[in-house]
Amino acid sequence: MTSKALDALRIVLVGTQHPGNIGSAARAMKTMGLSRLCLVTPECATDADEARAMAVGAEDLIGTALRADVLDDALADCTQVYGCTARRRHVALPEWTPREAAARAIAEVQAGGTVALLFGRERSGLSNDELQRCHAAIHIPTNPEFSSLNLAAAVQVLSYELRLAALAAAEPPPPAERGDPPATQAELEGLFEHLDRALVAIDFHKGRSPVTVLRRLRRLFLRARLNEREVRILHGILADAERMARLAAERRQ
Amino acid sequence: MTSKALDALRIVLVGTQHPGNIGSAARAMKTMGLSRLCLVTPECATDADEARAMAVGAEDLIGTALRADVLDDALADCTQVYGCTARRRHVALPEWTPREAAARAIAEVQAGGTVALLFGRERSGLSNDELQRCHAAIHIPTNPEFSSLNLAAAVQVLSYELRLAALAAAEPPPPAERGDPPATQAELEGLFEHLDRALVAIDFHKGRSPVTVLRRLRRLFLRARLNEREVRILHGILADAERMARLAAERRQ
Repeated sequence: MTSKALDALRIVLVGTQHPGNIGSAARAMKTMGLSRLCLVTPECATDADEARAMAVGAEDLIGTALRADVLDDALADCTQVYGCTARRRHVALPEWTPREAAARAIAEVQAGGTVALLFGRERSGLSNDELQRCHAAIHIPTNPEFSSLNLAAAVQVLSYELRLAALAAAEPPPPAERGDPPATQAELEGLFEHLDRALVAIDFHKGRSPVTVLRRLRRLFLRARLNEREVRILHGILADAERMARLAAERRQ
Repeated sequence: MTSKALDALRIVLVGTQHPGNIGSAARAMKTMGLSRLCLVTPECATDADEARAMAVGAEDLIGTALRADVLDDALADCTQVYGCTARRRHVALPEWTPREAAARAIAEVQAGGTVALLFGRERSGLSNDELQRCHAAIHIPTNPEFSSLNLAAAVQVLSYELRLAALAAAEPPPPAERGDPPATQAELEGLFEHLDRALVAIDFHKGRSPVTVLRRLRRLFLRARLNEREVRILHGILADAERMARLAAERRQ
């Protein structure tokens, strides 16, 4: 699954100015298992000796790279497009970290989509017009006093996060929890309602407001990412506590 | 705190062969806020034009770099040393991912330590003798069919993870949980014992073995990383459930 997921990811270099960066970007991609390179209106020779010299074994990615004269041609069959930006731009786009973007990209390709990651020119990045083709912007959290990330270094960071996300998605769940699907939101809400009733039944509040404690318990159980079986166990405990409260109440009558 | 943490991290390049890689490594470090470069027995001129050309604004890191003729001199004041390896070696060292290594390095510098990350030669990496000075090996999870990561690219990936770890460590805890310290292991064990007694009291098991369900609940609450206040709330709920069970039992007598 890992390599299949990575095959549906496209690295699109727009207007690249230095052939060495094309070679280094190809090498960065290949070390992380990515293979689909696309070169849009490069401002340098893409098969220059310098490009091949920097590829060091990843020349095949340059050879098979898609070439496009218009950005839209490079993106035509993509279901999601993310643009890598060094600075915050005046384009209203959701802004993701590389890690968030990688998780979303892998989820998209697992659902059958194709995702393009756009990297702009060395000097000026992506234009606003190019960013307007993107579903989201990716911002690598650099040192605010020196954010001059090399183009191939940016491709390296994103390719690395994409590989980790693909490996994580391909991993089987931990053995103990295998076969226990995560609880749905409706199941969790059902549990919280039961919890609310049970706390009243066992007289937990003793006159205090239940709001704060219920909010805390809700946060705790959401954080734990309960699975279906755990929700059933907790319902069972609450039901028995309620049963005891009923028996105790019958006694008082 | 972020920059202070990053200042106690040293990137040590051992036997570097290409001056361009020293420049690119310096640039990679500086984009992520790292500044302490150390060059041990480089096999190239470290102030060559090529090094400065690739640094593109990070020449200062080359200028202020420590230079050492012997690796031990570069590591003398370090409290932890991690070695970056491309391949698995015949050296018995714990092996960490970049993410694990970054989290441990930041924890170490927050505790007042100094951490060195070692990067070996372009062609042959670190020698076994050099790795034997390390507390752990870092393995970047590359494509097994093409693991030829450029030296500066490896420095970029590690520097990026170190920056993220430093930023995460500097972040205040979420507002709602602020002021509630995490529960200690002893507090959690006390909660699990109470849970055990309460489940018996409310007759949750009904003749079945309690082992599996207790194991599941233990896993759930460990995963949730309870804080002290949450432990107190859960104790309170269990105490009230037990109280109801006692009242119900008195009725049956």
